[in-house]
Amino acid sequence: MKDSILVYSGGMDSTTLLYDEADRIGLAVFFNYGSKHNPTEIKYAQHNADKLEIPFKVIDLREVFSHFKSNLLEGGDAIPKGHYEDESMKKTVVPFRNGIMMAIASGIAESNAFRRVLLASHFGDHAIYPDCRQMFSNAMKTAVYEGTWEHIEICTPYTELTKREIALLGTQMDKLDYRMTWSCYEGGHTHCGECGTCTERKEALEGFDKTTYLV
Amino acid sequence: MKDSILVYSGGMDSTTLLYDEADRIGLAVFFNYGSKHNPTEIKYAQHNADKLEIPFKVIDLREVFSHFKSNLLEGGDAIPKGHYEDESMKKTVVPFRNGIMMAIASGIAESNAFRRVLLASHFGDHAIYPDCRQMFSNAMKTAVYEGTWEHIEICTPYTELTKREIALLGTQMDKLDYRMTWSCYEGGHTHCGECGTCTERKEALEGFDKTTYLV
Repeated sequence: MKDSILVYSGGMDSTTLLYDEADRIGLAVFFNYGSKHNPTEIKYAQHNADKLEIPFKVIDLREVFSHFKSNLLEGGDAIPKGHYEDESMKKTVVPFRNGIMMAIASGIAESNAFRRVLLASHFGDHAIYPDCRQMFSNAMKTAVYEGTWEHIEICTPYTELTKREIALLGTQMDKLDYRMTWSCYEGGHTHCGECGTCTERKEALEGFDKTTYLV
Repeated sequence: MKDSILVYSGGMDSTTLLYDEADRIGLAVFFNYGSKHNPTEIKYAQHNADKLEIPFKVIDLREVFSHFKSNLLEGGDAIPKGHYEDESMKKTVVPFRNGIMMAIASGIAESNAFRRVLLASHFGDHAIYPDCRQMFSNAMKTAVYEGTWEHIEICTPYTELTKREIALLGTQMDKLDYRMTWSCYEGGHTHCGECGTCTERKEALEGFDKTTYLV
């Protein structure tokens, strides 16, 4: 039963969820919000959706996010280096981005007879991104459930998992190849290896045989 | 202190709120989501924002809402006639529209150092639009509060007022002229007088001296 939409970025976490819930995902939605790494992410997202024969849609939010401020966005200042939990990494916050993506995906779900919206926020995001935390997710779940006629369900199954635990899950999936996922905030052709999300990716994948953290 | 953003449609309710909170509104945001009456609404919204010298921004969501289904949208079936609470009026629901507008406005608020997001949903909307009800609004308030660093506050001061009560409030405001607001779902040059929102507008404004319901 294809009853779910996935908010899909082409990164490690949402790609793991794509393979994890492939049987139920009827649509993978990529939000192009004008980040420096969106153009690179799209290619990896499209690749995995195609591989699993899951319909894939890009929603263009660049005009909307032109009214936002964040170093993650095109036109913003440089991406900070260092560890994910560092204070400087707060500059990569795009205000209420997850709330916006969940809200739009919920409307698309109700419009197209889907019942669930999946999103792969995880425990490591909590320090920097308030819209990845459990208290936010729980309230948003209620808002979407109450605010839709069909009581659309928001599912964030990885909220209490670390990225390492997600990687442990993903490396046991035959078809999933983490080399075909993208993390780096810089975009480009190879991972920079120095930004917060590259650092986090390296730590999550360290020691796994069949994966390399850089592509 | 200009600490607030208004989600502003140019209709009776949000125009009343615009005048009511003019001292604190630093930005009025109009969401063009591709409805049949958006092009007409914009002119009225712009007029009132200009009159109060409040900065006015149009956010173009037409591409996003092209993935939605509703009779209210361009390309959808005909707008149903009749009373606002009728079952047929459910066809004018745009799934989770208020949730989406609140989410985007909250991100813009946090990006631009505003503290509050105002939205003029009212009691008469409850029967048809689940994302106008108190249970939705309360959960969304929590989601936005928890999901933003600065704890952005969502304010829906008219949730428990009827449209008639809003009109009573508005007709006591010197500068506000309801002839310079737009309600009709059909768009065009004059109110059709037959759709749900025209019927509701007539009932709300009936008997007031200085207003006429049609423009």
